[in-house]
Amino acid sequence: MTEATRRDFLHGTSALSLLAAASVVTTAPAAETRPARKAYEYQHSPLPLPYASGSLKGLSQTLIQSHWENNYTGAVKALNTLRARLVHAASDADTPPYVYTGLKREQLLRTGSVVLHEIYFTGLGGDGKADAALRTKIAASFGSYDAWEAEFRKIALGIAGGSGWVMLGYNQSLQLLENYWMADHATAPANTTPLLVLDMYEHAFAMDYGAAAARYVDAYFANIRWDAVSRRLEASA
Amino acid sequence: MTEATRRDFLHGTSALSLLAAASVVTTAPAAETRPARKAYEYQHSPLPLPYASGSLKGLSQTLIQSHWENNYTGAVKALNTLRARLVHAASDADTPPYVYTGLKREQLLRTGSVVLHEIYFTGLGGDGKADAALRTKIAASFGSYDAWEAEFRKIALGIAGGSGWVMLGYNQSLQLLENYWMADHATAPANTTPLLVLDMYEHAFAMDYGAAAARYVDAYFANIRWDAVSRRLEASA
Amino acid sequence: MTEATRRDFLHGTSALSLLAAASVVTTAPAAETRPARKAYEYQHSPLPLPYASGSLKGLSQTLIQSHWENNYTGAVKALNTLRARLVHAASDADTPPYVYTGLKREQLLRTGSVVLHEIYFTGLGGDGKADAALRTKIAASFGSYDAWEAEFRKIALGIAGGSGWVMLGYNQSLQLLENYWMADHATAPANTTPLLVLDMYEHAFAMDYGAAAARYVDAYFANIRWDAVSRRLEASA
Amino acid sequence: MTEATRRDFLHGTSALSLLAAASVVTTAPAAETRPARKAYEYQHSPLPLPYASGSLKGLSQTLIQSHWENNYTGAVKALNTLRARLVHAASDADTPPYVYTGLKREQLLRTGSVVLHEIYFTGLGGDGKADAALRTKIAASFGSYDAWEAEFRKIALGIAGGSGWVMLGYNQSLQLLENYWMADHATAPANTTPLLVLDMYEHAFAMDYGAAAARYVDAYFANIRWDAVSRRLEASA
Repeated sequence: MTEATRRDFLHGTSALSLLAAASVVTTAPAAETRPARKAYEYQHSPLPLPYASGSLKGLSQTLIQSHWENNYTGAVKALNTLRARLVHAASDADTPPYVYTGLKREQLLRTGSVVLHEIYFTGLGGDGKADAALRTKIAASFGSYDAWEAEFRKIALGIAGGSGWVMLGYNQSLQLLENYWMADHATAPANTTPLLVLDMYEHAFAMDYGAAAARYVDAYFANIRWDAVSRRLEASA
Repeated sequence: MTEATRRDFLHGTSALSLLAAASVVTTAPAAETRPARKAYEYQHSPLPLPYASGSLKGLSQTLIQSHWENNYTGAVKALNTLRARLVHAASDADTPPYVYTGLKREQLLRTGSVVLHEIYFTGLGGDGKADAALRTKIAASFGSYDAWEAEFRKIALGIAGGSGWVMLGYNQSLQLLENYWMADHATAPANTTPLLVLDMYEHAFAMDYGAAAARYVDAYFANIRWDAVSRRLEASA
Repeated sequence: MTEATRRDFLHGTSALSLLAAASVVTTAPAAETRPARKAYEYQHSPLPLPYASGSLKGLSQTLIQSHWENNYTGAVKALNTLRARLVHAASDADTPPYVYTGLKREQLLRTGSVVLHEIYFTGLGGDGKADAALRTKIAASFGSYDAWEAEFRKIALGIAGGSGWVMLGYNQSLQLLENYWMADHATAPANTTPLLVLDMYEHAFAMDYGAAAARYVDAYFANIRWDAVSRRLEASA
Repeated sequence: MTEATRRDFLHGTSALSLLAAASVVTTAPAAETRPARKAYEYQHSPLPLPYASGSLKGLSQTLIQSHWENNYTGAVKALNTLRARLVHAASDADTPPYVYTGLKREQLLRTGSVVLHEIYFTGLGGDGKADAALRTKIAASFGSYDAWEAEFRKIALGIAGGSGWVMLGYNQSLQLLENYWMADHATAPANTTPLLVLDMYEHAFAMDYGAAAARYVDAYFANIRWDAVSRRLEASA
């Protein structure tokens, strides 16, 4: 794996576009020029799904299309609008800090939504089968692959009926592969690279499964693109 | 910078021990064997402060010692205890998912506390002066270095009287250097490398400054170890 | 209104059963013997819907039935189970406080879900028309009835796509009729009597409306049982 | 107890002023005219402490004065400012709902802070001794008075080092006297009358006790004004 490719997979957005068009030559800027993007002016562009919205098993085109368009794209738009609001509030000396943090909270919530949705959609489109090398790595951390899957599913069902995310992540500080419970888009383990995330907000399944969250989790597992998880792990750990 | 050193700074824990004893030969395991740590059995050891607890400017030895010992070390102990509880709960078929997630929430809260406190303490012990190269990078993202500092401080004051963290982080998905508001140890931007974090829980300053949070933030700025920030940015972006 | 009836409407659960069977003679215990219920042993019984699940306008029987059965009744069951867990944890000297609070958080979440869902379902089944006296009271607080409705709807749309509740409540401490944003079942204004609550968790509408939350809010408004709101206000303020 | 007095104790603010000047003739408006206050224009006035700030046992004048002045009065000021911001945002058609809810979240946080701090300060100034009648009522709910106190203290210690509140409250829907864990000012059990609240934000004790939260809880218990709790229970249940 070249350094450029490695860096691309480290970044969720690049990974997504790469998966969408695998033959495209990457044009990532050289490391020394980063970060060049403007924190305040930056406007994010929604990334297209890296597969046809009707191509997943057990997750309808209507659901995936609505999820991508209304929830993910909606979060992108809100985030872009919030930046303009933040610029205005920051330049207004009359804005009290606690009004400013109200905006920052909304920014964090939408940032999490954008980032997590991109990793979620990137993690689907596969056959649900983890290769032996990855299963071995997961087993090394969790005792067995099945123990990992059991905990991941248990967290999902504990959230079901409410909202939140489940994450398999590599905690860079603790140097641990762990599963995390996340209450909403703004909850996350600090300094952790997400490898696989499961959206448990009801917009991710209610249209297809109503309240039958366990069946949605089955469908999710059947569509995991494990090679994306492997590459993210390889790039991060 | 060698690959081994670079990797060490990417990981907060290694960075902290490295700062504490800069002449120690690193013995990080080779990349291909990671992650070898067991997610469930792992017991974290508190990392010593990389400087004398009485050596910071405007932050008393009593405060720093209590912060390190009671809050940081307390979180380490709680996290270690929670792992044993999680192992027990996971192996008990009668544990409902929503009881399990109660434990996972506490685990996430303590994990965040451990990770963020280690980055916080690592980020202190300096002279508060960012070098020109880093100031240029920050200015490239925020318009100017002063604009960055103004927002960072405004977020801190918006939290003051409550609790939470301020983070300057590199968002790996958005490829942006940004400031983030965080409500508690479990709030964080997903897929983001923390470069500099400011503890706004009242245990970080009330003993010295009472409710005068702005004066604490001044003291914090005077002690920032900016070379640690530079290395973390270099390793992550 | 007799004192006994007044007291019944003060209590959400009694109000619900009363609405379901208005001719039933109330048998509330005398005030001096209250509270007689055991905090730890108490087991809540799900209250039936006070109308046929298929009788609401623009909210399907499938949706209402699933909402009542899976989400509301599910919360009742979880809450009942959590009490037994709490009794066990409280009697076990080895339970650390931060493990106990993990359970208390889940208890609070399910308590909020039970209480709010009962007020939500009680508040539906009407014709959506507030009488003149109530409109006048609302206008006295909010400037106009339309200003109240506009804010209530704006909060709902700010939550849409995530989860939470909107509450029109009477704040007993501030003596104010106000609208409140609530992030989840555990978020609420302290010391406030809920008069009207709107469930914005996606399980309340996704089956019927997908991501079209504004259309769900329209349907909600068309079904409000305003006499229940009037009685709750009369009993509380 | 007259109806007017009863109503006064139902309302936290009136209770506080009543305790401060017990001989004052109450001038509460008649029930039929309430609520007359304007939700949007209302400006809250800080209530004075109902005792000398240096008169509590084991809680220093410096601490109590700072707590009242910086945290409670600060919340009042922030809440008043937020109302003006909300009026402006509501009248601006360009304000997206998710920007508006950012303000509503801040409003809820400050509302909770104001309400809970008033009940907290009202609940102190006593001799810490509950009379036999109240102990019997508490025992009827919790098995024994000691079981109640043990749980209340355990919740406090589970929060210690972070922030939040403990509440003994009467849940109007469940008709239960219960202890509740609260993560912050915006967390609360819905439809519940607070009887006794314990501030576990570190500003409530760090100046006097550093991280020794258990000693603060001892001091709190020694100062509880139980007759205020009795009156609140009598008025609410």
